[in-house]
Amino acid sequence: MQLVDFKTVAANYKVIFFDAFGVLKNSEGLLPGIGHTFDWLRETGKDFYVLTNDASRGPHELAESYYRQGFYAITPERIISSGMLAREYLDLKVRNGIVAYLGTEKSAHYLETTGLTTLPISHVDLKDIDNINALVLLDDEGFDWNTDLTKTVNLLRKRNIPVIVANTDATYPVSKTRISIAIGAVAKMIEGIVGKQFIRFGKPDAQLFMFAYERLENAAHIGKRDILMVGDTLKTDILGGNKFGLDTALVLTGNTQPQDAEVLIRSTGIIPTYICKSIVIR
Amino acid sequence: MQLVDFKTVAANYKVIFFDAFGVLKNSEGLLPGIGHTFDWLRETGKDFYVLTNDASRGPHELAESYYRQGFYAITPERIISSGMLAREYLDLKVRNGIVAYLGTEKSAHYLETTGLTTLPISHVDLKDIDNINALVLLDDEGFDWNTDLTKTVNLLRKRNIPVIVANTDATYPVSKTRISIAIGAVAKMIEGIVGKQFIRFGKPDAQLFMFAYERLENAAHIGKRDILMVGDTLKTDILGGNKFGLDTALVLTGNTQPQDAEVLIRSTGIIPTYICKSIVIR
Amino acid sequence: MQLVDFKTVAANYKVIFFDAFGVLKNSEGLLPGIGHTFDWLRETGKDFYVLTNDASRGPHELAESYYRQGFYAITPERIISSGMLAREYLDLKVRNGIVAYLGTEKSAHYLETTGLTTLPISHVDLKDIDNINALVLLDDEGFDWNTDLTKTVNLLRKRNIPVIVANTDATYPVSKTRISIAIGAVAKMIEGIVGKQFIRFGKPDAQLFMFAYERLENAAHIGKRDILMVGDTLKTDILGGNKFGLDTALVLTGNTQPQDAEVLIRSTGIIPTYICKSIVIR
Amino acid sequence: MQLVDFKTVAANYKVIFFDAFGVLKNSEGLLPGIGHTFDWLRETGKDFYVLTNDASRGPHELAESYYRQGFYAITPERIISSGMLAREYLDLKVRNGIVAYLGTEKSAHYLETTGLTTLPISHVDLKDIDNINALVLLDDEGFDWNTDLTKTVNLLRKRNIPVIVANTDATYPVSKTRISIAIGAVAKMIEGIVGKQFIRFGKPDAQLFMFAYERLENAAHIGKRDILMVGDTLKTDILGGNKFGLDTALVLTGNTQPQDAEVLIRSTGIIPTYICKSIVIR
Repeated sequence: MQLVDFKTVAANYKVIFFDAFGVLKNSEGLLPGIGHTFDWLRETGKDFYVLTNDASRGPHELAESYYRQGFYAITPERIISSGMLAREYLDLKVRNGIVAYLGTEKSAHYLETTGLTTLPISHVDLKDIDNINALVLLDDEGFDWNTDLTKTVNLLRKRNIPVIVANTDATYPVSKTRISIAIGAVAKMIEGIVGKQFIRFGKPDAQLFMFAYERLENAAHIGKRDILMVGDTLKTDILGGNKFGLDTALVLTGNTQPQDAEVLIRSTGIIPTYICKSIVIR
Repeated sequence: MQLVDFKTVAANYKVIFFDAFGVLKNSEGLLPGIGHTFDWLRETGKDFYVLTNDASRGPHELAESYYRQGFYAITPERIISSGMLAREYLDLKVRNGIVAYLGTEKSAHYLETTGLTTLPISHVDLKDIDNINALVLLDDEGFDWNTDLTKTVNLLRKRNIPVIVANTDATYPVSKTRISIAIGAVAKMIEGIVGKQFIRFGKPDAQLFMFAYERLENAAHIGKRDILMVGDTLKTDILGGNKFGLDTALVLTGNTQPQDAEVLIRSTGIIPTYICKSIVIR
Repeated sequence: MQLVDFKTVAANYKVIFFDAFGVLKNSEGLLPGIGHTFDWLRETGKDFYVLTNDASRGPHELAESYYRQGFYAITPERIISSGMLAREYLDLKVRNGIVAYLGTEKSAHYLETTGLTTLPISHVDLKDIDNINALVLLDDEGFDWNTDLTKTVNLLRKRNIPVIVANTDATYPVSKTRISIAIGAVAKMIEGIVGKQFIRFGKPDAQLFMFAYERLENAAHIGKRDILMVGDTLKTDILGGNKFGLDTALVLTGNTQPQDAEVLIRSTGIIPTYICKSIVIR
Repeated sequence: MQLVDFKTVAANYKVIFFDAFGVLKNSEGLLPGIGHTFDWLRETGKDFYVLTNDASRGPHELAESYYRQGFYAITPERIISSGMLAREYLDLKVRNGIVAYLGTEKSAHYLETTGLTTLPISHVDLKDIDNINALVLLDDEGFDWNTDLTKTVNLLRKRNIPVIVANTDATYPVSKTRISIAIGAVAKMIEGIVGKQFIRFGKPDAQLFMFAYERLENAAHIGKRDILMVGDTLKTDILGGNKFGLDTALVLTGNTQPQDAEVLIRSTGIIPTYICKSIVIR
C-alpha cells in the first residue's frame, strides 16, 4: 500500500469534494491542522464542497458548528447533506399527515420547515397511527434505542408507509481510534426485521454527488475529471465517488484504520485512486 | 388459509415440541387457557418438550418462571434452550481468558458455571482487552443499547475473537399485538457493521432439535414422523422443524399476526403443515 | 387494490418516464395496443423518455428495434439506458488496458467506441490477465453461463479490478406469463462468491433519472411534480421513481403479475402512487 | 500466519473428520500423496469420516470413484454427504407427487430410491405443474444453466413448494489454482430472485456433523474434544466444525489460496484452530 501526500494529489484537480466525519472532524472536534489545507485551497483558487451523510441539522447549523471552533472556511452553501435530499423527498412525496422520526428535535426542526408536522417516535401513540404517513430516520441521538426502536418496529408492522433513511452511514468516527454506530446501521436492522425496503439518501448513491456537481461555480468549465472526492469510508465515499466517475482519495483519519486499509480494499474490491494519511498538508 | 383445531392435529402425534414465546407465553405472562392443553397431553400420554431460543437464564430458572405463575407442567428437563448450546460451545472451545457478554447478569451466571470468567461489555475497558477471548450475545436486556453496542463494535474492530449469538430470534411477542426486538436482530446489525461471521445457536438450526430428539423418553419407539413442532415464527420454528423432517404447526398468538400469515407463507415459501389459531383446546 | 386507467392518471402530468421491458415490450415484441398511447401523448403535447436498464445495445440500435416493428415514436434521443452510464464510467475511470465483458458482441461494440479494447470472457486466457483492468457485465446473452461465469470467478480471484454491472435488473419479462433471469441477478451471484462490491448502474439508482431529467425539453418550466414514472418492477422502477421524488405508476404487464401486486407492495413496502393494468388506452 | 504440520496436529485426536473437495481431491482427481496419510491413520488406530457437501451421487458411488483411482481407504460407510440429508428430508416430508430437480440423472437416481418420482427441470412442462410438490437442487452439472435456471424461476413463481438445496457450497476446487461455481451459489441466486427461503443441507449446519458423530465406532469413549475437523473452506468446514464444538484445521489445497488465508480469517472472523499446508504427511 503506497501512501501519497494529499497536497501532491490535490494539486492536479480544480475541485475537491470532502466527506466531513473522519476527514475534517470527528466527535472530539476538528482534526488538528486542517486549517492549512483550506488556506492552500483558497490561495490556489481551488473550489471545494463538503458532501456529508448527515441529517442531524441543516447546512446553516452545520456551518455554525465549524465557526464555533474558529474555523470559517466552510460556509453553508458549501455543504451538501443527505438531510437536504430527505427534505426534498418529503416536500415532493408526502403531502399531508404526520411524519414520525427517530433523531433529535434539531434534526426534525430542519424537516419541519417544509410545512409538515413531525412527531418523535417517543411521542407516537401506537393506538393512534392512522395519519402517520411517513417515517424518517435522521440521527442516532435523541431517542432511547431500546424503547423507541421496538416502537418503530410495531409502527411499521401496522402501517405500510415510506421509510426514509436520511443518513446511510453504518458508523462514524468519534476519536482517533474509536467509532460509533450511525443511524444507517440501525435502519438496516429495522429493515431486516420488518422485511421492507427503505428509501436511502446519501453516499454512495449518485444523488448527493449530483447536487454538488450542479452547484459548482463556473460549472461550464469543469468536468468530472477535474474533481477529486476525498473520504474515510470505502463503502460510501470511495464507492460513490468512483461510481460517479470521479477520482477518489481514501484518508486514514476516520472509519478506516491504517492497519486495515489494504485488507479492506482487497476484500471489498472498492479501489481508491489514491490513499493519503490525512488531508493535512505541510 | 385454512385453520385447524390444535387438538385435532396433535392427536395424530406421540410427541409435541413447543416453542415458548408466542406459543406458551408472551411478556405479559402465560397465554390464557393453555393449562387445559397440558392436562390433555398428560392424560393422553403424549410426551412434550419446549425448544426455545432463549439464553436469558438456565432451564431451572426458566421452569421456575412457570411455577411462579402456578403452572407446573413444564419441568427443567423438558426445556431445551439455545443458551444450553452456547454453554456447551464455550465449554468446548474457549479454554481460558475472559468471555465478554451482552445480557443480564443472570444470563451470564448460567454461563459462568462452566468455569469461565465473564464480564459485561459495560465493564470492559477498551484499553485492556488482550485477554478477552470470546464475546457472547445473550439477551436484549441488562445493558444500554446505545453505549454498549458501540463499545461492542470497537472491541470487535480490535480483537478477532469468536462471537456467539445465543438467541437467533429477531423479535419476540410482548403482548397480543406487539413485539420487541430480540438480541438476534441486534447481533445481525453488529455482524454487518464489523463484516464478520458470528456463530449462531438456536432454531432454525438443527442442533436444538437434535438435543431434544436425543432426550426423548422411549426414543427407540419414536421416529421423526411421530413428532409435531409447534411455533409462532416461520423463519425459526417452522423452517427449522420442516428442515429437521418434522410436521409443523404455525400458531397465530405471537410473532405472526393472523392477517399476515397467508402473505408471509406465500412470500417466504416457508410452509407449515398446519395453521392453528392457538394451542388452546376446548 | 384499486386499478386506475392510465390515461386518466397520465393526463395530470407534463412528462412521462417509461420503463421499456414489461411496459412497452417483452421478448415477443411490442405489447399490443401501445401505439394509441403514444399518439395520444403526441396529440396532447406530453413529453416522454424511456429509462431502461439495458446495456445490450446503444440507443440507436434500441430505437431501430422499435422501427423494425413499425413503431416510430421512440427515437434514439428519447432513450436513456444504463449502458450509457456504464460507458461514461469506463470513459472516465478506465484509462488503459483491456475491459473484459459478459454479453453479446453488439453490447461490447457500444462500449468500444470509447477507445477501449474489449474482450469477451470466453476469449480471456486466465494465464494472461495482467492487463485486464475492468470487467463489465452487459447482457445475459452471448456467452455460455456455466463455463464463462466460472471463468469470471477465477479472473476476479486473481485481479482486484472494478466490476461494472451495466444492468441491475434481476429478471425481465419474456411473455405475458414468463420471465427470464437478467444479468443483474447473475452479477449478484458472482459478487457473493468473490465477496466484493460491484459498481451498479441503472434504476433504482438516481443517476439514470438525472440523465433523463437533464435532457427534458423546456426543462426550465418542468419540476419533479410534473413527471410520472411508469414501470412494471417495484424494486427498480417504482423504488427509483419514488426516491427521485416522482409520482409512480405500476403496470401489470411485466415482472409483477396481477395476482401478486398487492402482496408484493405490502411485503416490500414499495408503494406506487397508482396501479394501472397497462399503458394501453382506449 | 503460522503453518503447522498435519501429522503433528492430528496425533492429538482420536477421530478425524475430512471434507472431500479441496482436501482429498479436486476435479482432476486425488491430491497427490494423501495415501500415506490414510496409511498412518490406520496404523495409529485413528477413526475417520468424510463429511461432504455433495449430492451428485450416493455414498456407494462416491466410494467407487475413489476405488477407480486405486484408493481403497474410504468405504461407503465412512462417507456422510449432504445428499443423504436431502434424501431423508424428501422421505419424511414429501409424500406424493413429483420432485423436480436440477442436477445429473445420477444425482436424481439416488433420490428416486425413496419411492418418489423425479423429473429434471428440462423435462418439466410449465403448463402442467400442479403435481410438482418439491424442487431439489442437486448438482451444477446435468442441465443447461441459462435455459433451466430461468425455467426454475418460472416454476417457483407459480408453485409455492419447498425447495431443497442439497449442497450449500458456493464453489469447489477444480485444480490447484482454479475453482468452479457449485449449486449452492446458484441456489442463492434463485432464492434472491423469487424472494423465498430455501431449505439447505450441508456444512456449516450441524446436521451433517451430527450424522457423523452418531456413527462413530466406540462412540461411548469419544467426545467432541477428541475430534478434529479438516477442511479447505472457512464458511462451511471451519465455521461448521467450530460451531459443533470441534477443533478445526484449515488446509490450503482447495478453495482457500495460501496468499488469501490470513486476510480471509481476519475479515470473516472465522478462526480455525490450526492452519496446515495440506493433509499430506512425510
